[in-house]
Amino acid sequence: MGRIVQKFGGSSVADAASIKRVARRILNAKLAGNDVVVVISAMGDTTDELMDLAMQVSPQPKPRELDMLLTTGERQSAALLAMALSDLGAEARSYTGSQAGVLTTPTHGNARIIDITPGRIESALAAGNIVIVAGFQGVSQDTKDITTLGRGASDTTAVALAAALGADYCEIYSDVDGVFTADPRIVPGARRIPEISYEEMLEMAANGAKILHLRCVEYARRENVPVHVRSSFSDKPGTWVKDQPEGSTVEEAMITGVTQDRGEAKITVVGVPDRPGEAAEIFDTIARADINIDMIVQNVSQVSSGRTDISFTLPMSDGRKAIEVLNMNKDKIQFDELLYDDQIGKVSIVGVGMRSHPGVTAKFFRALAEAGINLDMISTSEIRISVVVDSEQVDEAVRAAHTAFGLDAEGEAVVYAGTGR
Amino acid sequence: MGRIVQKFGGSSVADAASIKRVARRILNAKLAGNDVVVVISAMGDTTDELMDLAMQVSPQPKPRELDMLLTTGERQSAALLAMALSDLGAEARSYTGSQAGVLTTPTHGNARIIDITPGRIESALAAGNIVIVAGFQGVSQDTKDITTLGRGASDTTAVALAAALGADYCEIYSDVDGVFTADPRIVPGARRIPEISYEEMLEMAANGAKILHLRCVEYARRENVPVHVRSSFSDKPGTWVKDQPEGSTVEEAMITGVTQDRGEAKITVVGVPDRPGEAAEIFDTIARADINIDMIVQNVSQVSSGRTDISFTLPMSDGRKAIEVLNMNKDKIQFDELLYDDQIGKVSIVGVGMRSHPGVTAKFFRALAEAGINLDMISTSEIRISVVVDSEQVDEAVRAAHTAFGLDAEGEAVVYAGTGR
Repeated sequence: MGRIVQKFGGSSVADAASIKRVARRILNAKLAGNDVVVVISAMGDTTDELMDLAMQVSPQPKPRELDMLLTTGERQSAALLAMALSDLGAEARSYTGSQAGVLTTPTHGNARIIDITPGRIESALAAGNIVIVAGFQGVSQDTKDITTLGRGASDTTAVALAAALGADYCEIYSDVDGVFTADPRIVPGARRIPEISYEEMLEMAANGAKILHLRCVEYARRENVPVHVRSSFSDKPGTWVKDQPEGSTVEEAMITGVTQDRGEAKITVVGVPDRPGEAAEIFDTIARADINIDMIVQNVSQVSSGRTDISFTLPMSDGRKAIEVLNMNKDKIQFDELLYDDQIGKVSIVGVGMRSHPGVTAKFFRALAEAGINLDMISTSEIRISVVVDSEQVDEAVRAAHTAFGLDAEGEAVVYAGTGR
Repeated sequence: MGRIVQKFGGSSVADAASIKRVARRILNAKLAGNDVVVVISAMGDTTDELMDLAMQVSPQPKPRELDMLLTTGERQSAALLAMALSDLGAEARSYTGSQAGVLTTPTHGNARIIDITPGRIESALAAGNIVIVAGFQGVSQDTKDITTLGRGASDTTAVALAAALGADYCEIYSDVDGVFTADPRIVPGARRIPEISYEEMLEMAANGAKILHLRCVEYARRENVPVHVRSSFSDKPGTWVKDQPEGSTVEEAMITGVTQDRGEAKITVVGVPDRPGEAAEIFDTIARADINIDMIVQNVSQVSSGRTDISFTLPMSDGRKAIEVLNMNKDKIQFDELLYDDQIGKVSIVGVGMRSHPGVTAKFFRALAEAGINLDMISTSEIRISVVVDSEQVDEAVRAAHTAFGLDAEGEAVVYAGTGR
């Protein structure tokens, strides 16, 4: 007899029919002899609709009250799912994040889980219930106010509960079949990855793969919770994200997957005095505005002028704010002008295999060159190489890398049913 | 500096504009120097919509889960109202029934308030906040599960909070101007009652006046909380429901108001053996089916047959069930046949004045007789006389009584703006 945590996203419970379908799947897991805990997102577009309502009432809704409002969405889907399970003859009980013992920091809208005290859930499981927990939410340990964990954080709720309950694994259900070697909408021959390590998944999530929330993967790695990413529309196995012994699958492939991210913009600060501390001044200014930057490139200084250019990338949504704060500090930083470019894309190759295979960088860059793609910026980690290219060349770059590293499916292309999320 | 509890119904917070309007009214009470606690219902038709959703998922939703679902409606309007108040510069915080310390019995769908532990609310008031509490809901003292108090029970939440917080009074806002001497849709000359005693209000609520929930009035009487029933669409005074010294207003009028109730049906059990215990058998059967009956009449026995007829009234919604259980027990009760009539209406006159004015009954019946109205059944309490008449004669009976007891407004008729509820 096992114990599993299942998480279903909003598209899996978009309407009454979907809720009943999901209920049957959950019941099967219970009938197979497992303790089953289910984490559920709000139905379909509920969260967006509630946000619209809030904006109608207030242009700047108080974060505490916004959390009170938005958390009702998951609570509704949790209650409805419990009703559907009862109709199937199962004992099921829904719990809010607070009732489930999800204790968080007090930061409304972006709280972090501090601890989970699953006393009520353990009791309900012991009494034979299927337990449904409203995702995305908790209660502040300090203030006792309701908090939310940020968009998409129901995945994190599920993994955190799996860790707290000592579950065998956590299943994350969505409308895609798992993690693929590349986005199948760009690379029709992309293959499902049967198993992937936490660190590879972290790099992929951080560099554009939207299948799992970054914080969720971090939590799973820290607590060593195996995560099974799979489709709620089929019974096919998906992708297992788990600890992998060094060298276990390394021999097979140099890289595991290719990702792309079109959500960044590049700012170039032109004509900065080439003196110690100037770069720090720029990035202090950006950091004070609560903006995270990704890549940084400092051009070779022009000896004649004693000035240099510094480029960096950041989330496109922070672009306007960054330009504003830099301009406000123009006198202090002493730059000539700012250039802004959001017609860029980041393409990354990820794989623990590159640790033991020399020449991965050369192979990657040669493939891009042969495809006629210019590299604008480059950054690397131990198991990832990322390049910034023109946004119109992103798809071509992904396909070139995918082919160069032998990831294309042989024979017929895999049919990809999902719609992304 | 006073302390008041205000309750706003669903029609007062039906949309964003209404919420903002209500927020300004609340702020005025705060700026006048009061501690203000607000109890809020769900927006407009939210509760009905959630109920529809539940019925789509399950034909017989589990009461525990239905309560989890339905209580989100009040929580949403509470959060939105707090946001609107913040925009006006006020400090406001919303609380669920559970957070507000509303402890109830565990009966989902129809829980009763056992106690209120308003620690968090007192703290929030002490910190200068306007406190918004989601009505209609609490938490079971035993099971810690979320409960609801039954339809319309936000009024009860408000009065219970007013008692627990030692508020000076409780304001119940709706879309009508107060309690009237009769339903102004039937009697255009009906007048607003400036003050009414708890017991008169109880009789009126129990006999068809829908302005206040019966349980709310019972609670107010028990805890001696003055209740001000008024319109959220005007600043006019409404009706004060409060303790009244004997004889204070009695001199003015024999009766205080006339009510009608079209929600009952009459069942006649024909040919029951006229032996001790036969009536008990009938009413035991009805009681075991959880049906409350109102009036009972036993006809004079026909000596020749040794049999009699027994008639009683009950809520129309229980009519089918009552017929079923009586037929199932036909052998035990030994009746000949059942007659069912839901084309009836109950008309009641209510007033503490009838204690000291003899002849009220005679005056009432004479007025009805002069209007050509037949009385089918009669029942009385110390301060009320009710008659059952043909449903088509209800309006005429109400008007006749209203005129006979001098309740019609003099001069121009009062303009009645409300739409009932």
